[in-house]
Amino acid sequence: MRIHSDYLTVQTKQKREFINITANVRDAAEKSGIRDGLILISSLHGNSAVFINDEEAGLLQDIDEWANKIAPFSDQYHHSPRSESNAGAHLQSLLLNHQTFVSVADGKIELGPWQHVMYAELDGMRPKRVLIKVMGE
Amino acid sequence: MRIHSDYLTVQTKQKREFINITANVRDAAEKSGIRDGLILISSLHGNSAVFINDEEAGLLQDIDEWANKIAPFSDQYHHSPRSESNAGAHLQSLLLNHQTFVSVADGKIELGPWQHVMYAELDGMRPKRVLIKVMGE
Amino acid sequence: MRIHSDYLTVQTKQKREFINITANVRDAAEKSGIRDGLILISSLHGNSAVFINDEEAGLLQDIDEWANKIAPFSDQYHHSPRSESNAGAHLQSLLLNHQTFVSVADGKIELGPWQHVMYAELDGMRPKRVLIKVMGE
Repeated sequence: MRIHSDYLTVQTKQKREFINITANVRDAAEKSGIRDGLILISSLHGNSAVFINDEEAGLLQDIDEWANKIAPFSDQYHHSPRSESNAGAHLQSLLLNHQTFVSVADGKIELGPWQHVMYAELDGMRPKRVLIKVMGE
Repeated sequence: MRIHSDYLTVQTKQKREFINITANVRDAAEKSGIRDGLILISSLHGNSAVFINDEEAGLLQDIDEWANKIAPFSDQYHHSPRSESNAGAHLQSLLLNHQTFVSVADGKIELGPWQHVMYAELDGMRPKRVLIKVMGE
Repeated sequence: MRIHSDYLTVQTKQKREFINITANVRDAAEKSGIRDGLILISSLHGNSAVFINDEEAGLLQDIDEWANKIAPFSDQYHHSPRSESNAGAHLQSLLLNHQTFVSVADGKIELGPWQHVMYAELDGMRPKRVLIKVMGE
């Protein structure tokens, strides 16, 4: 059994950004030398998300607007008075999930024809860490 | 360490269908010969979902209606003008998640008394692939 | 490859409770003797959730209220007439997810500075089981 971990640090220029990290996942798989296994991609923060879906620009805008509608930013949260104003980003992280898995087979990551691994920065402009961990053989 | 992968192809007759795939997961576990481990069940498409919950018909209807309420189909999405009209299905895939894990112990899949592995077709009538991957020993 | 499973039984006094189970996850990792690997934490019920986020009391209240707003308890669900009145809890379990993963590295669980593993009882006052399964080497 082989295990390989990469840590990605993301610092966005905008408060909200959707970043395609599929190449980083592919790199981790290649570096690991693992031919068959699983990759965990997991944000180490409660106000960002990692998900798999299409990367079409219009759809990413839909996801962004939908998350803001379902769990809006507001100063009406209980979390807010404690010097935090980002409860909406935390709820959106739960909505979209902060982690996902990709399979590795024959040394290649297995994604559907339209699937990409996306990092969603929900409250950015500060350094965030993402774990990419490959396990297999 | 042993690894075994099955690929399930689902083509529904209706646009929306919820299919119990627990038997397919159990079959993959048995075929693998793995006694103790984990099974990833993951859709290779961004407009379907895989989740674990009760399979009671009324509840499945509730899940279907709820998903359509929280992320409705509409021609008002940015994704839509690009010849796509299924942005709602993509958002619902994020809401319900496109993948889940089941444990294997003593050669049997471990689910709670009411839990079933469900494939949710959110925009169907075309072939969709689902990866069922068993890892363990 | 090593595998170790713990089963946690939770019986809350209130219908709704959010319980920090990070210490249970850490205990399972230590008992396993595994230095590097993954831990699945998965509820064996369709009406509770397991997620990773901050454990700040105001935020947990926000999560509770948000879940109740997005998927309210009601007697208007199809699931309800069948002697069940907790369809809302099932939808909330899908919203928040019933399982999550934590990495183990150097024999320690890997969480961001504010991340905790939370068990969310959505329809409690009866015994619920949570699987904590460590795989690695």
